[in-house]
Amino acid sequence: MHVRIAVAGASGYAGGELLRLLLAHPEAEVGALTAGGSAGTRLGVHQPHLLPLADRVLVDTTADTLAGHDVVFLALPHGRSAELAAQLGDDVLVVDCGADHRLTDPAAWTRWYGGVHAGSWPYGLPELPGAREALRGARRIAVPGCYPTASTLALFPAFAAGLAEPEVVVTAVSGTSGAGKALKPHLLGAEVMGALSAYGVGGAHRHTPEIAQNLSVVAGRTVGVSFTPVLAPLPRGILATCTARTDASAAEVVEAYAKAYADEPFVHLLPEGTWPTTAATLGANTVHMQVTVDPDARRLVAVAAIDNLTKGTAGGAVQSMNLALGLPETTGLPLTGVAP
Amino acid sequence: MHVRIAVAGASGYAGGELLRLLLAHPEAEVGALTAGGSAGTRLGVHQPHLLPLADRVLVDTTADTLAGHDVVFLALPHGRSAELAAQLGDDVLVVDCGADHRLTDPAAWTRWYGGVHAGSWPYGLPELPGAREALRGARRIAVPGCYPTASTLALFPAFAAGLAEPEVVVTAVSGTSGAGKALKPHLLGAEVMGALSAYGVGGAHRHTPEIAQNLSVVAGRTVGVSFTPVLAPLPRGILATCTARTDASAAEVVEAYAKAYADEPFVHLLPEGTWPTTAATLGANTVHMQVTVDPDARRLVAVAAIDNLTKGTAGGAVQSMNLALGLPETTGLPLTGVAP
Amino acid sequence: MHVRIAVAGASGYAGGELLRLLLAHPEAEVGALTAGGSAGTRLGVHQPHLLPLADRVLVDTTADTLAGHDVVFLALPHGRSAELAAQLGDDVLVVDCGADHRLTDPAAWTRWYGGVHAGSWPYGLPELPGAREALRGARRIAVPGCYPTASTLALFPAFAAGLAEPEVVVTAVSGTSGAGKALKPHLLGAEVMGALSAYGVGGAHRHTPEIAQNLSVVAGRTVGVSFTPVLAPLPRGILATCTARTDASAAEVVEAYAKAYADEPFVHLLPEGTWPTTAATLGANTVHMQVTVDPDARRLVAVAAIDNLTKGTAGGAVQSMNLALGLPETTGLPLTGVAP
Amino acid sequence: MHVRIAVAGASGYAGGELLRLLLAHPEAEVGALTAGGSAGTRLGVHQPHLLPLADRVLVDTTADTLAGHDVVFLALPHGRSAELAAQLGDDVLVVDCGADHRLTDPAAWTRWYGGVHAGSWPYGLPELPGAREALRGARRIAVPGCYPTASTLALFPAFAAGLAEPEVVVTAVSGTSGAGKALKPHLLGAEVMGALSAYGVGGAHRHTPEIAQNLSVVAGRTVGVSFTPVLAPLPRGILATCTARTDASAAEVVEAYAKAYADEPFVHLLPEGTWPTTAATLGANTVHMQVTVDPDARRLVAVAAIDNLTKGTAGGAVQSMNLALGLPETTGLPLTGVAP
Repeated sequence: MHVRIAVAGASGYAGGELLRLLLAHPEAEVGALTAGGSAGTRLGVHQPHLLPLADRVLVDTTADTLAGHDVVFLALPHGRSAELAAQLGDDVLVVDCGADHRLTDPAAWTRWYGGVHAGSWPYGLPELPGAREALRGARRIAVPGCYPTASTLALFPAFAAGLAEPEVVVTAVSGTSGAGKALKPHLLGAEVMGALSAYGVGGAHRHTPEIAQNLSVVAGRTVGVSFTPVLAPLPRGILATCTARTDASAAEVVEAYAKAYADEPFVHLLPEGTWPTTAATLGANTVHMQVTVDPDARRLVAVAAIDNLTKGTAGGAVQSMNLALGLPETTGLPLTGVAP
Repeated sequence: MHVRIAVAGASGYAGGELLRLLLAHPEAEVGALTAGGSAGTRLGVHQPHLLPLADRVLVDTTADTLAGHDVVFLALPHGRSAELAAQLGDDVLVVDCGADHRLTDPAAWTRWYGGVHAGSWPYGLPELPGAREALRGARRIAVPGCYPTASTLALFPAFAAGLAEPEVVVTAVSGTSGAGKALKPHLLGAEVMGALSAYGVGGAHRHTPEIAQNLSVVAGRTVGVSFTPVLAPLPRGILATCTARTDASAAEVVEAYAKAYADEPFVHLLPEGTWPTTAATLGANTVHMQVTVDPDARRLVAVAAIDNLTKGTAGGAVQSMNLALGLPETTGLPLTGVAP
Repeated sequence: MHVRIAVAGASGYAGGELLRLLLAHPEAEVGALTAGGSAGTRLGVHQPHLLPLADRVLVDTTADTLAGHDVVFLALPHGRSAELAAQLGDDVLVVDCGADHRLTDPAAWTRWYGGVHAGSWPYGLPELPGAREALRGARRIAVPGCYPTASTLALFPAFAAGLAEPEVVVTAVSGTSGAGKALKPHLLGAEVMGALSAYGVGGAHRHTPEIAQNLSVVAGRTVGVSFTPVLAPLPRGILATCTARTDASAAEVVEAYAKAYADEPFVHLLPEGTWPTTAATLGANTVHMQVTVDPDARRLVAVAAIDNLTKGTAGGAVQSMNLALGLPETTGLPLTGVAP
Repeated sequence: MHVRIAVAGASGYAGGELLRLLLAHPEAEVGALTAGGSAGTRLGVHQPHLLPLADRVLVDTTADTLAGHDVVFLALPHGRSAELAAQLGDDVLVVDCGADHRLTDPAAWTRWYGGVHAGSWPYGLPELPGAREALRGARRIAVPGCYPTASTLALFPAFAAGLAEPEVVVTAVSGTSGAGKALKPHLLGAEVMGALSAYGVGGAHRHTPEIAQNLSVVAGRTVGVSFTPVLAPLPRGILATCTARTDASAAEVVEAYAKAYADEPFVHLLPEGTWPTTAATLGANTVHMQVTVDPDARRLVAVAAIDNLTKGTAGGAVQSMNLALGLPETTGLPLTGVAP
């Protein structure tokens, strides 16, 4: 199969990671590269690591420039994908790395993002029960947020097995590429290095309802989520520490996770006693995971490590694209990280 | 007052930070510097940043070398302080940066550390209700662990005010100096940079019972603690994200914290909407803190930032020494961090 | 002596470091804090580490707001100091951390900075032969650039002793705070971490003529300078590797350096075989240095480590202020770094 | 072609990077993985990022365990390869990532490494004039050192074109993986982060004669090398700043480099005015390069960025293997880095 692919938002971090993966994808041909303010400049200015595309010139992000491709990835600020998708036609696979179509509840959308909900699309987290089936043949895909990817994968097997009470506490530490390329003082290197800082505390981060939605569907009832994101001094990586009350033993929990992930190509439950490090996932589409039960606190503790730009964004997007197009799900996606 | 001070374990990170602070302490004279395997070498080999002491030669850690000082700081592996203290006499102020005398419950000691409990000493966290009084005039002080310092200060005001349910979840991210200078593969720079990794998960970290002890005393009942430490790529700093169920409003909680810390010289409750960063505490004895309530999850979320080697170890130790000696509590302790 | 001090440019990195040092200076009282676009905001927003000044409000940078102080530090973009200084009167000590008055040659100024030279002021590098005398009682001081501080101190003793040929090659690696708080894409944390990058290559950096000027004065003839700055992933620190052809032996060179720095309080020639690390200078006004001769290449190699914001900017400025005011030169300046 | 490959030293950084690349190499089958002290343990303990090999068990490094493969990579401390190679037979391709066979001059070997020289092997830097031809069909390959790879590629075109005087000054900044996994105090994360430090200064680093050898061959006369390596806080990457006196113009030099690298698949001369960053080469076999002439100092300045573990070690080794086996030179080697 030969797949011609456009990437909208090619100068940003998500766009760059999509292109890195697509360059290694045996069926992909990289077509139009679009941008906003950077239109007219060489890609090499923004993404010097993508040598084979360095001399490509970015064009404006419009339905016209994106037309004529089999697949269009949108790595844009939220609010723009519905209109673009409508113009691209139903036969084009549109994969939205933004937030517009993740939430299924219009009221939740309006509360967290403002404005009118543009509708939900099949959710690009194939490991979630039922998701893989919905993605096969889909022509619209909503790529999950990076924190929801890590947090949902860390917790859903517990809910699928009925082993956790429906109130979870998640503290997820992230590298700063997750904040994008926006020029904000607190994202300057001199500020970031040496700094650990929480933000969006108290349920203020927009990924909170997305995590709650995912877990509630699996649990079959409302799961409350206390979510705190923390920025740490590394470019990439999310480590999500996720807890919930449980009456189960560690062995029962581990068994449930082993079963849930037995056939998943990208999710790796580590050997007993080994806990994940984000360093092992750099540039890979993998999830390294471990789970146990704290016998005193009576809490299940699951920890998941991902690369926020790969499995957390662009890798998950390509994985879902593969499913939608009928390709083997793992096509072109790295199982090995770059370490140290 | 002229205070002659010995530091045992001067080649390590806690010892180095003690010396940095004592060099700036107007009443302190640095006496013997002792070490284990490094005895006989210049301090400058191990602590090149301590220029004024660079040519001091380390001596063996024995009761003899430590004798003849007004204050002896012990920055040693656990298990050695009781015997040394016994040999030093009751009039010498012994400040133990190790764990030997933190826990009050002998059974807890034996469970977490093994062996027989050497007894508890006044606990060097002056901000904790009742602690300041116990430290005045004390001749034995148990310096808290770094994680318990951050976590206890982040949570006790809620329990003091009766605003939190007695089950807390703490995820604390730390710089790698907290792991000390031990030569372990996972602490190599090439491993640490780019890595976020959880350890001691599921209640396995020895600081868990110390946090529980502190909060339980304040709450007047047993507080369960789910504690997960995470290593991040920075030399210093702890950011503790601490949650507990609450029925209080954010305003009530903030008011309780403002009251608890109104007169504390080192604890700084940040302006509303501002969340702490460890970068602001580097090298300072300060605690930067914020608290709110997640109205959906019904959880109080408190975040505290400290420098693990300063307020989390050596600064807390000097603060307690000041109290024990009758000096102004803030003597010689920096209120300003080094940033960026 | 009681010295009332204003800082213009208090929201930036140099301004913040000046304030950190002045807070610990026994004779200093911090007066007006001024800024450009940040006027009207709390200092705590920009410099959360400076707790004692957190609630001070920044005012506009004008001659009026700066009037009424004994000392005015200018930490501003170049081009503004001459006019402000003229309005402040000759009795006020004006210490310019910018570049306006460093170069003595008007033609060099015009070539490197453009426009008309505003004249040169006494150069705030007390260790340079003759500089200390010129600073005593001065009412105008030009603080050296950070790279020239490290490079000049690494090389001038060789020229003072006639031991080096007048062509030097300097490669200086710097933390990113040296680039200031300007919001540029390549200074984002995600870009900086993991990146080593040269800039201003080929003699394009404005610090080149300043280094050449310093060394030429000492050598008594023109010294050519090949200077390449490199950005590395740390907030603070400069390591300057400086070489020149020599016919001298290592012993001769070391002796010359030992003599040159024998009485310097802030310059520390390390023991033989030990090479400097910037980590030992963090937050200190110190210079750690070593020198040797490569017997095969017949080149002298000197390496100097400083904190670019302390000895490289604000510490050097305060050291020069002390001299100008007749205070002991070391007043208020840290000799110990913060490590690890 | 199906190539069965053993890796000796699979638990170290060079071994890990070899395996990462071989897993993506379409003709390679990973055979025996050997180690020293780690024999008997799972590879996943040491290289958790290499998921597909996680359960492989390391065996002892002996001629027996290495026998039966088409290719044997040796990533061992120096001094062991000659004996192992002799036992493996002449038909096996032995690629030595160590130093044993890099130097052609036995006297130089003895001076820099001690002991008796084991002889030189074809040098695995295909871009060097004549090297590619020597590698085709070779059965023994000496992989260059990481610093010599960057420095030689940065400078040889100038010597090939007769545009540089035969005394060069190289300051090369490196990430800490270049120092390997040895447990040394100065390599601990807490020491490395925030630290820039020079080492092997004054011609003491063993890569100095290797750089001199490479350039002297191209220049046709002895080239003197002043080489200073600097450690910086990042896991991977070398940025080599290389200078030499020249009478040429920038345009002449750029033209010579453009010509030298016109057909090189892995060396990328950046557009005018753009200088390389190591971040663009992470995990790639690429060299990003730029060159100019400082018109005042009359020095050519060339800067090369590589990933020390990829092009600097394992990638260069695989590239040479491809040549030796008659495979397309770029087979299995990434042209794109992982950024940010």
